[in-house]
Amino acid sequence: MVSLRIENAIVLTMVEGAGVIERGVVDIEGNTIGYVGEADQAPPADAERVIDARGCVVLPGLVNAHTHLAMTLMRGFADDMPLQKWLEEKIWPTELRLTEEDVYWGAMLGALEMLRGGVTCFNDMYHFYEATTRAAMDSGIRACPSGVLLGFLPNAEDLLRQAVEFVKQTLDEGHPRIHPMLGPHAPYTCPDSLLQQAVEYAQELNVPIHIHLAETDQEVRDSLQAHGESPIAHMESIGLFEAQVLAAHCVHVDDNDIEILARRGVGIAHCPGSNMKLASGFQPLPKLLKAGAVVGLGTDGCASNNNLDLFEEMLLAGIIHKGYSTDPTAVPAEAVLRMATVDAARSLGLGAVTGTLEAGKRADITIIDLQKPHLQPVHNIVSQLVYAARADDVRTTIVDGEIVFHEGRFTAVDEAEVVAKAQERARKLVGGQAKG
Amino acid sequence: MVSLRIENAIVLTMVEGAGVIERGVVDIEGNTIGYVGEADQAPPADAERVIDARGCVVLPGLVNAHTHLAMTLMRGFADDMPLQKWLEEKIWPTELRLTEEDVYWGAMLGALEMLRGGVTCFNDMYHFYEATTRAAMDSGIRACPSGVLLGFLPNAEDLLRQAVEFVKQTLDEGHPRIHPMLGPHAPYTCPDSLLQQAVEYAQELNVPIHIHLAETDQEVRDSLQAHGESPIAHMESIGLFEAQVLAAHCVHVDDNDIEILARRGVGIAHCPGSNMKLASGFQPLPKLLKAGAVVGLGTDGCASNNNLDLFEEMLLAGIIHKGYSTDPTAVPAEAVLRMATVDAARSLGLGAVTGTLEAGKRADITIIDLQKPHLQPVHNIVSQLVYAARADDVRTTIVDGEIVFHEGRFTAVDEAEVVAKAQERARKLVGGQAKG
Repeated sequence: MVSLRIENAIVLTMVEGAGVIERGVVDIEGNTIGYVGEADQAPPADAERVIDARGCVVLPGLVNAHTHLAMTLMRGFADDMPLQKWLEEKIWPTELRLTEEDVYWGAMLGALEMLRGGVTCFNDMYHFYEATTRAAMDSGIRACPSGVLLGFLPNAEDLLRQAVEFVKQTLDEGHPRIHPMLGPHAPYTCPDSLLQQAVEYAQELNVPIHIHLAETDQEVRDSLQAHGESPIAHMESIGLFEAQVLAAHCVHVDDNDIEILARRGVGIAHCPGSNMKLASGFQPLPKLLKAGAVVGLGTDGCASNNNLDLFEEMLLAGIIHKGYSTDPTAVPAEAVLRMATVDAARSLGLGAVTGTLEAGKRADITIIDLQKPHLQPVHNIVSQLVYAARADDVRTTIVDGEIVFHEGRFTAVDEAEVVAKAQERARKLVGGQAKG
Repeated sequence: MVSLRIENAIVLTMVEGAGVIERGVVDIEGNTIGYVGEADQAPPADAERVIDARGCVVLPGLVNAHTHLAMTLMRGFADDMPLQKWLEEKIWPTELRLTEEDVYWGAMLGALEMLRGGVTCFNDMYHFYEATTRAAMDSGIRACPSGVLLGFLPNAEDLLRQAVEFVKQTLDEGHPRIHPMLGPHAPYTCPDSLLQQAVEYAQELNVPIHIHLAETDQEVRDSLQAHGESPIAHMESIGLFEAQVLAAHCVHVDDNDIEILARRGVGIAHCPGSNMKLASGFQPLPKLLKAGAVVGLGTDGCASNNNLDLFEEMLLAGIIHKGYSTDPTAVPAEAVLRMATVDAARSLGLGAVTGTLEAGKRADITIIDLQKPHLQPVHNIVSQLVYAARADDVRTTIVDGEIVFHEGRFTAVDEAEVVAKAQERARKLVGGQAKG
């Protein structure tokens, strides 16, 4: 039974080598994709609902491979500051005051922002991860929630066990859009023994580990001093990559690190906006791609971005590495679009679930309206999406078969209420500085 | 007589030191700004029309300091290619086939794109500049049109005289939104003698010169070999800066060049999107700003960007120099917003006309709607505009006192016709490759 047919669209399946379907049909059966292909070969179907996508392009829902969603509440709260001052004087003291209610509404706000911008799945690491999970369930987005396990806390092992309980319970409940992970924060905040415990749990539960790796030059220098090897090499040594791992950033990686990351199939979340804004540096993305590493795109949190816009991240990934390497052929548009869809899904271990339009996968779909002055004429659809399109060009966002956002409106969420609640939480959190 | 009052808005005048007006009023009298300030001090006025800008921020119209507008027709036509191959195999052969009709509709398309994105003024250099001028008049935007004077053409001096005639005639006609310039393309395409002639005409007519300077490393190397000095130093030597000059790019400039640019008050159009995409390099923007140079933001043409979105350029200017200099305090948001407004206007010699909200200046105004998930909460309005806002957040664009775009619609232009005509011209131009 076809619950939804999308017709008359240009379709980009993002399946390797599949090219562009000029007049395509996508059929959805429940939460799953049925037929994808040329209209004239589509099976007859008496679809419950039809979307006429004439003048639009249909592509897999975008996947945000790394964020801290509820940091929307701190959007623009502290910019243009040195990193340590930013963390110590602004971010950390504010995070200490966070409540579960704050995280829920901050995550709801972020989920709506992402759904408006065609993002159907996000990978999160944050405090009060149950609240983020609830926000994902309520907003209709797909999520990979994890906590922020900080090894220096006196109760770190308890926190790990709580996280493991959360993963077990979530897997038992089997929510079709929730894919829990374990989130040890970073090698410089977690001792090796704790990371090794996390690996054991991750393997036992068959869930990935979400961690920050090699974000700053300082982190690499400290690792060399402490362990005589880079963060990546050290993680290889202690067995982290025995688990499926999503490593956020990987900015400061050398040729040996790149070889390890590619060989071990480590998922990498490239966050160009955050790397630029925090002055972390330029990831050697062209080398990583050449080595066959699995690289997805992420926004990082709103305190260092300051939005959750994967179209911006696509533009940045597509152009800053050309500028930095002085090679205008570096990181072509096709590779960038893969990083926002299929490769981001693979980086999260969700390659069988989402990231392409293929029969049998979950129906996570973004429809982009091309009938706008800044998207015409269309000479090359992939170039258009990467270099010219914006989040606001999204006409429809479908997650797990449900139309969540369509033509400017959410189908099941009161957007005005979410914005108002998030404003209220932000005002409480930072002491009345936030304006309406 | 107040023709239009904007009320209940947060107002950023962009006047040095003026700060944020939390509940402001802007009065417009014909094509001129009357009152700007706090609501409780506004003179009583029986305005013909009132815009309630509650929940919005009102700021000066954005100024695009460098583009080649009709290149919208080549958007996405040739990407991810080495520069010479891109020019020789794709751009130049296509430009040879351009007609006046092509340029008109390409420029119309670009004008609508910019007006939708809050841009009220643009500085253009392109073939068939009369067509671009006509498109500016018809679309309602403010323009600084100039030709592309290529000194190696056999009739270069005739072309210069034609350009001079165009400037004279345009000045005589006195259209309130058209500010013509002279456009010698670059030092490497124009002999010194032709540039010196252009300077004489520019001084005589009291119009600025629009030129490309120091865009690539190769250009600097060639100049050093030919003249024993950098392009900037050589332009100083031959007297170019005796005229008011807008120099696009200025990527490869050393400390001596920066001193010259600042001392001579040369307007600089920084085009970070184009510089990254074409792999031209990183402008030393932090140094230029420190030296007091007048730097505006530009998009460059759509073949190297691939849109005309000053919000994207703001984001890029605000973050890539942090990444490149490894200093997260480099190029703060306030400086970026100045580069898109007041400093861009100054760079074009239009500082008395546009770029700030002040009584007596022309009413070029952009109203941004903040009531969106990605623009809430608001902790810092300037951060929000530079790091989080997008072109689509523009609710209203006013040029020379006229509401040109409001709530998704153009008041006097048939947008669908413009898009259709531009599609048709693009199809003819590149041989049927363009899709609808």
